[in-house]
Amino acid sequence: MSKTNPGNFFEDFEVGQVLRHATPRTVTEGDRALYGAVYPTRFAVPSSAEFAASVGLSPAPVEELIAFHIAFGKTVPDVSLNAIANLGYAECRFHRAVVPGDTISTQSEVIGLKQNSNGKSGVVYVRSTATNQRDEVVIDWARWVMVHKRDQDAPAPETVVPSLAPAVEADDLILPSGLTFTAYDDVAAGEPHRLDDYAVGEMIDHVDGVTITDPEHMLATRLWQNTAKVHFNTEARPDGIRLVYGGHIISLARALSFNGLANAQLIAAINAGAHTSPAFAGDTVYAWSEVLDKAAPAAWEGTGVGALRLRLVATKGRDESMTLRDSEGKYAPGVLLDLDYWALVPR
Amino acid sequence: MSKTNPGNFFEDFEVGQVLRHATPRTVTEGDRALYGAVYPTRFAVPSSAEFAASVGLSPAPVEELIAFHIAFGKTVPDVSLNAIANLGYAECRFHRAVVPGDTISTQSEVIGLKQNSNGKSGVVYVRSTATNQRDEVVIDWARWVMVHKRDQDAPAPETVVPSLAPAVEADDLILPSGLTFTAYDDVAAGEPHRLDDYAVGEMIDHVDGVTITDPEHMLATRLWQNTAKVHFNTEARPDGIRLVYGGHIISLARALSFNGLANAQLIAAINAGAHTSPAFAGDTVYAWSEVLDKAAPAAWEGTGVGALRLRLVATKGRDESMTLRDSEGKYAPGVLLDLDYWALVPR
Amino acid sequence: MSKTNPGNFFEDFEVGQVLRHATPRTVTEGDRALYGAVYPTRFAVPSSAEFAASVGLSPAPVEELIAFHIAFGKTVPDVSLNAIANLGYAECRFHRAVVPGDTISTQSEVIGLKQNSNGKSGVVYVRSTATNQRDEVVIDWARWVMVHKRDQDAPAPETVVPSLAPAVEADDLILPSGLTFTAYDDVAAGEPHRLDDYAVGEMIDHVDGVTITDPEHMLATRLWQNTAKVHFNTEARPDGIRLVYGGHIISLARALSFNGLANAQLIAAINAGAHTSPAFAGDTVYAWSEVLDKAAPAAWEGTGVGALRLRLVATKGRDESMTLRDSEGKYAPGVLLDLDYWALVPR
Repeated sequence: MSKTNPGNFFEDFEVGQVLRHATPRTVTEGDRALYGAVYPTRFAVPSSAEFAASVGLSPAPVEELIAFHIAFGKTVPDVSLNAIANLGYAECRFHRAVVPGDTISTQSEVIGLKQNSNGKSGVVYVRSTATNQRDEVVIDWARWVMVHKRDQDAPAPETVVPSLAPAVEADDLILPSGLTFTAYDDVAAGEPHRLDDYAVGEMIDHVDGVTITDPEHMLATRLWQNTAKVHFNTEARPDGIRLVYGGHIISLARALSFNGLANAQLIAAINAGAHTSPAFAGDTVYAWSEVLDKAAPAAWEGTGVGALRLRLVATKGRDESMTLRDSEGKYAPGVLLDLDYWALVPR
Repeated sequence: MSKTNPGNFFEDFEVGQVLRHATPRTVTEGDRALYGAVYPTRFAVPSSAEFAASVGLSPAPVEELIAFHIAFGKTVPDVSLNAIANLGYAECRFHRAVVPGDTISTQSEVIGLKQNSNGKSGVVYVRSTATNQRDEVVIDWARWVMVHKRDQDAPAPETVVPSLAPAVEADDLILPSGLTFTAYDDVAAGEPHRLDDYAVGEMIDHVDGVTITDPEHMLATRLWQNTAKVHFNTEARPDGIRLVYGGHIISLARALSFNGLANAQLIAAINAGAHTSPAFAGDTVYAWSEVLDKAAPAAWEGTGVGALRLRLVATKGRDESMTLRDSEGKYAPGVLLDLDYWALVPR
Repeated sequence: MSKTNPGNFFEDFEVGQVLRHATPRTVTEGDRALYGAVYPTRFAVPSSAEFAASVGLSPAPVEELIAFHIAFGKTVPDVSLNAIANLGYAECRFHRAVVPGDTISTQSEVIGLKQNSNGKSGVVYVRSTATNQRDEVVIDWARWVMVHKRDQDAPAPETVVPSLAPAVEADDLILPSGLTFTAYDDVAAGEPHRLDDYAVGEMIDHVDGVTITDPEHMLATRLWQNTAKVHFNTEARPDGIRLVYGGHIISLARALSFNGLANAQLIAAINAGAHTSPAFAGDTVYAWSEVLDKAAPAAWEGTGVGALRLRLVATKGRDESMTLRDSEGKYAPGVLLDLDYWALVPR
């Protein structure tokens, strides 16, 4: 009888089920400007129509994370409104540039289910696909979340745990149509470091920090039409403190990484991501990166494009030692985010 | 001698006087994005160019309240800079869609005057009309405000109290040019409920809440070029607290009403509105709606469009009992806004 | 070995050196909207495409200060990352309108160097030039900053102090291409006061005030890609308080000056500027202006355009006495900004 959306509970999901998410959302130049107001980003491709055109992308795409946050936000009312925790991401690939005027729609397929032994909740695995107004795939990714059961007596479904790759293979990365770094302008981009200037194992302290405020993370999170109460409503948590959307930390850290990774122009894939601690207003967020891998796929010959696999770590307070884990293998106390992704860089 | 605008006082108004307000304002995609950053809106028509085109509106209009706030803001320096209170609205109709690139100008005609018995102030009634760059009417509405006299010895004008309708008749609602809900996509819109799924007298608790912050309401109010000091300047009120613009509460409540009224896509008219209590940063705003009336005007036959007359109530703190008035007929303590409007929905 | 940018120190500069700054930045309608959300601006030319067209400017330019802040922000990583103080501006001229779609790049030439007697720092003079995507000059200006030495034993360079004009001559002001005020609409613009209505020596109290919040100044400063830590990171200053970007105060004061200077539509030049005190969240900023000079250059005959040279003063707290300096010639305690500029007004 109620007209409002209670969200899905664990027993509402079944493997193979397809969820078409509301509401489609058109990206605009306003989104680009707001992203630049909320995050200290300076990557040349989304910043400059001229620079973007010089690398074969015209009109200039918006940051990949704008598309990701919008696409992800669409899934929240159907997938994670009753979630206890976001457990992970995998196999996230960016298929094509998103430009102002593109309309993003998202749908998800349930690809796995596993009830928890306590019988009160379970893990739901979905593969989500964001498409544009031409039904072309823009992004796809898998994620798994722990979701409450409505009724603890509901029978457990057959356990299906999908097999997900630990990382996207370099050869499976997608070069955005038209992209070429053969006439890449290092000075305009801000740094001279190219693919071969980075070594696997290299650590980069991005130096700068940003102290979070509530209005700023709310403006961003709302822009993506993300409806999770805990980000906006101080009455939604017992401590009366708003929780910062995990994607906000991803975007903050990515923007801070400009200082040392200015040429990591485009995100091609997200291999894995863990939000290891909650973040709140007043926290000062810093970032460091580790080079995990390098690639120059044969299929990209002649484009001047290479790929860096990077671990991007956000910390509360600066950690010049760049320590990810303590001696017991647990995440070090200040670590907020551990993100594994592929970026496209000039060779 | 002073170059600054002191605003009009009660004795500066006369019935029949026409005030052409400064400054015209062009609507942009930036306004749409900021609106979505400040309010948790997800209505499909303003969110998606594709969805809007599917219902006959292309380019996609911005939310009607963007146009209303801009049009209203223009009247402040001439009508209500010296106001003691905004007393009411009536007969507000939305004549046509506003799209990025449209330039809004507003003028007002004084349609009534009534000096208060204390001789210190009076009520000014104006009918305001917002037009676009083609001199087409976009919105018109009546409002009345209590305004200070500059000089208490100024003679009282002849009392003229205009006759204003308690509500816009359904047959007087205007269907935006081209609008058709015959191929309406419920899934993309977010909910399946159509005109006949709502019953007169039905109450809908919109569940979600947003805790107000000062920067957010200031960003929105400033965007509409509303110049009332009390919203921006902590030195403008004895308590040092910024007062939230009443229109901010309207937009917050309207956005929250998506959860249960996702198909109330467009606002066609505002019948009446009362800001029953002031709102401040730190207040958590919730909303509920009551279905007051339903209509399917004969002239709209074949368009698939119907109309719901709704009471939209914003409250400070959630009131699951949805109580509007106490036993003495006064507004219940937490009520911030009581807005009576017509929305266009699919049949 | 480090990949991050340490900025230039005093001994890294030499006279004649040209610095091409990263990263080019395309202006959008999103910037215009955000500027209007952050600053209470109502000048008719940037507000209305129709008004702008009526004075010969189409598409409508964005506020000159948007272009200035972007162009200035580009210079920070190369010129002032290790600055102790911004000492001054001079000879800043606005050459042409900036419209959405324009991409701004900036380069600077070192035009002077003077080591301080303490041997620990020195003054660097640069002339910066912002160009658009057609390599046309948009703005140029000189500024001088005090910069740390990396190594106190580095030898002092030859002292070169450039000769900079105390003010741009009226005859050197540039009329934006196409600008004409011959059919200027005072009512739409908001005030009737034209060139001849202002007298040299006249003082205008702009009445209104805005209380600063941290999120708002950060949104604006970040939008200009200004990377100075002190504006964003509470750990960057011993007192844990964010310092407001000086340009934020310029834009606030300029917007407040609408009330009394609504017809000072366009900024043609900045003659000099001093940020006389730091500003912080919680400060309530007011503004007053003094008319320093008037001009109607012969070359502008027939355009209806004149110029006002104005001193724009921002204060913390309202000072109705409009006192710039105390009896000893020092800036009065509440003064935050003393800006000397030329504005274009209708004759």
